[in-house]
Amino acid sequence: MPSTSQRTSDITFFFEPKSVAVVGATNNPLKFGHYALLNLIDLGFKGKVYPVNLKADEVSGLKAYPRVDLIPDEVEVVAIIVPAPSVPQVMRDCARKGVKGVVILSSGFREAGGEGIKFEREIVETAKKAGIRIVGPNTTGILNTSNGFTTSFAPLPKLRKGNVAFIAQTGLFAAAAFWWILSAEPFCLSRVMGLGNKSDVDDSEALEYLAHDEDTEVIAIYMEGVKDGRKFLKATRQAAKNKPVLILKSGRTEAGIQASMSHTGSLAVRDEIFDAVCKKVGAIRVKDFEELTDLAKAFALQPLAKGNRIGIVSMTGAGCVMAADYSAEYGLEVPELSDETVKYIESYLPSWINVKNPYDSEMLFESVGPEDCLRISLGGFLGDENVDCAVCVLPSSPMFAFDVEGSIKEIKEKYPDKPFAVNLIGSKDMVDLWTKQLEDIKVPVYPSIERCVRALGALSKYPKITRALVSDSQ
Amino acid sequence: MPSTSQRTSDITFFFEPKSVAVVGATNNPLKFGHYALLNLIDLGFKGKVYPVNLKADEVSGLKAYPRVDLIPDEVEVVAIIVPAPSVPQVMRDCARKGVKGVVILSSGFREAGGEGIKFEREIVETAKKAGIRIVGPNTTGILNTSNGFTTSFAPLPKLRKGNVAFIAQTGLFAAAAFWWILSAEPFCLSRVMGLGNKSDVDDSEALEYLAHDEDTEVIAIYMEGVKDGRKFLKATRQAAKNKPVLILKSGRTEAGIQASMSHTGSLAVRDEIFDAVCKKVGAIRVKDFEELTDLAKAFALQPLAKGNRIGIVSMTGAGCVMAADYSAEYGLEVPELSDETVKYIESYLPSWINVKNPYDSEMLFESVGPEDCLRISLGGFLGDENVDCAVCVLPSSPMFAFDVEGSIKEIKEKYPDKPFAVNLIGSKDMVDLWTKQLEDIKVPVYPSIERCVRALGALSKYPKITRALVSDSQ
Repeated sequence: MPSTSQRTSDITFFFEPKSVAVVGATNNPLKFGHYALLNLIDLGFKGKVYPVNLKADEVSGLKAYPRVDLIPDEVEVVAIIVPAPSVPQVMRDCARKGVKGVVILSSGFREAGGEGIKFEREIVETAKKAGIRIVGPNTTGILNTSNGFTTSFAPLPKLRKGNVAFIAQTGLFAAAAFWWILSAEPFCLSRVMGLGNKSDVDDSEALEYLAHDEDTEVIAIYMEGVKDGRKFLKATRQAAKNKPVLILKSGRTEAGIQASMSHTGSLAVRDEIFDAVCKKVGAIRVKDFEELTDLAKAFALQPLAKGNRIGIVSMTGAGCVMAADYSAEYGLEVPELSDETVKYIESYLPSWINVKNPYDSEMLFESVGPEDCLRISLGGFLGDENVDCAVCVLPSSPMFAFDVEGSIKEIKEKYPDKPFAVNLIGSKDMVDLWTKQLEDIKVPVYPSIERCVRALGALSKYPKITRALVSDSQ
Repeated sequence: MPSTSQRTSDITFFFEPKSVAVVGATNNPLKFGHYALLNLIDLGFKGKVYPVNLKADEVSGLKAYPRVDLIPDEVEVVAIIVPAPSVPQVMRDCARKGVKGVVILSSGFREAGGEGIKFEREIVETAKKAGIRIVGPNTTGILNTSNGFTTSFAPLPKLRKGNVAFIAQTGLFAAAAFWWILSAEPFCLSRVMGLGNKSDVDDSEALEYLAHDEDTEVIAIYMEGVKDGRKFLKATRQAAKNKPVLILKSGRTEAGIQASMSHTGSLAVRDEIFDAVCKKVGAIRVKDFEELTDLAKAFALQPLAKGNRIGIVSMTGAGCVMAADYSAEYGLEVPELSDETVKYIESYLPSWINVKNPYDSEMLFESVGPEDCLRISLGGFLGDENVDCAVCVLPSSPMFAFDVEGSIKEIKEKYPDKPFAVNLIGSKDMVDLWTKQLEDIKVPVYPSIERCVRALGALSKYPKITRALVSDSQ
């Protein structure tokens, strides 16, 4: 891991400020500025918090100040959520106060065109002269689940700490994504960083910070454009050596680029070029938010695969065929099993049955019942030296109920170094119950076979990526 | 619509038999034969039901017979679930009895190789001589939600009637898919037909039957191989003229083909050829089960789109960009709005805001609140003559709670002829609740923007397909 001295800058203070002012904090619950302050209180942030409001003496129970530079104590970071035309003046106040960084949540800047462009240029100039770093404008900014610090203006629920960091070039989307992850996914977030228009701090610096952040084991990025290509490549390559970097980049088509121009004012990058570049620097590019969370889940919960040979165990024959198809598409081989495994599984079956990979376990299920079926088939496959990872396809219905959690837990404990994923299809109650049970013991469950195989494909691809990056830089 | 006389055969009796025998019915709940009989009782099938069991006098409360030909009354259809080596003898009993059709649920035939091939050849010959039609072997067979008739050996829950038919070349997968659809999807099934090894009745005949089945408005197919290409093309083209035909075909890669050989003994078809053929005959090919149910849901719930121009309304800017990207990929155009719509929406906003498609409605949300925001933005878009369909991206969290159902219902009732789909992202409880509410009023909700746009793409593509097929055949 490179030493801290190699970094171009250190934006750690944005995640761990000792004191923060919220400009635009208000008691009006219909305004986003209300939540920007409330979140800090609700999440239990331990640093100092100063509401700034021209008219109120007190906001959400805290003493308020009319201007940042009238706050008597030191202020490290300022969150700004007032209309764009007022932000240049706030920035001058911040410069006078000598703050380290501002997070500008307001929109109406470069992305809006017209006067917005002028406002953005003005605040950037003021900040540069005063040595202030800017996150945004046009974003939700920062969230650190380790200390409860946030600038988010979207109401946030209670936090769980996690190992996945999320960098997003957008505000509400990052917040909505965060709600989803917190309430629906078995992994959680370490840091969230909304970059908005990236007038100053950009993905590269975020990546540099996260590459060294010990709470973060996986980095997921939503982006619409790249400002400084060379810097981004260097930062991504460096981060990808340490941990998987997943990138969802939109603005891929003409229509998307047009939309992106008026969202974050991003410059267009030709999509094939961005694709090639991602490959070169070891980033794993994904196509939609579902794939982003699918892969983040796999990396957050499971070990990496030592190779690309997949074992396929399915209670349905169709599952075998589909899983084999997807394996080929996601770079996985379907190897022959070792004789030992074949003999082991066949010993539980009538003599005329041949066991192979993919394995349709319906007959075994009928012979030995569900628990032993899983133990023998999935367990047998994971124990095979020819198999690096496995997908298990299980129909689920209350009428087929069995102790899936106990059986899978035993298998997982026996083969902790080989990743596997489960696809459940059947009655929804049972799918939801089993999904919860399995994901609680860190086995990722996906609602389609393809998504299982895609995730395992990533777990097998990433070690190759890091090896290539490391040997590249030697 | 072609008249009945044009059909090559009529397999209606498989779905509406007056009497059925279940060979292999048993009181042992660990055997699938137990459920094959029990389902008929539980689903309330009104025809006559005869268990056939060599040893028992009574199965599940019904008088049992040792052989089919010893049943004193007429038997129209026979479901067979005894080990493969015994099936040829059962088939001879059926021939003696003069039944119309058999559904062979047992596996161990062509797909198993060796003796299985001989067994299958034998039963096909016996059936042909006796004029008996065969569904299977190696399948779950038939389900008709209109009359509760089924040969399924997988335990089935209570039934809802629906408008989507599902043809599947596999047993348990069809059952598991059925459980899922019944418990999790807002649409339901009219008919299910498991074809297994297709030793006789095949997809083409199933398609012919379903093309004319009045309960069926959408046909979804899972298949691994095609036996008689020419017949399949003709049947598909004919069916696609009447209703959308969605095809999920596996065995697409070398690995998949290998797996398929030992599952249903299917012959390989080169995937590019199958793809081209689907296009030619108007079938919509899908890549996985998730896409199959996604599109079935859209067709089952929504009107077709009159053109390919999509309106994009998103509460997040990122949603706008991503939806625009996916639109380009799924054949949808992102048109300019009419001046009228622009003026209408802008009248609710500060003067410096420009409204366009895609539309980031965050500012409108802040100005007029969530209900009016939806009414003005999504309603405005659907009312625009330049827009044929729309996607609506909504963040959802308990803290943003509002009457989404009421607002959307009003919009849907005002514009019943334009399809739209909703993507929800946010806290899971809220996503689940809103999904249920919206799908109950027949608005499809998808967990990703891409899946919304893909579904709308299909709704806009299908009318073009039928027009082409009709003009082709004139």
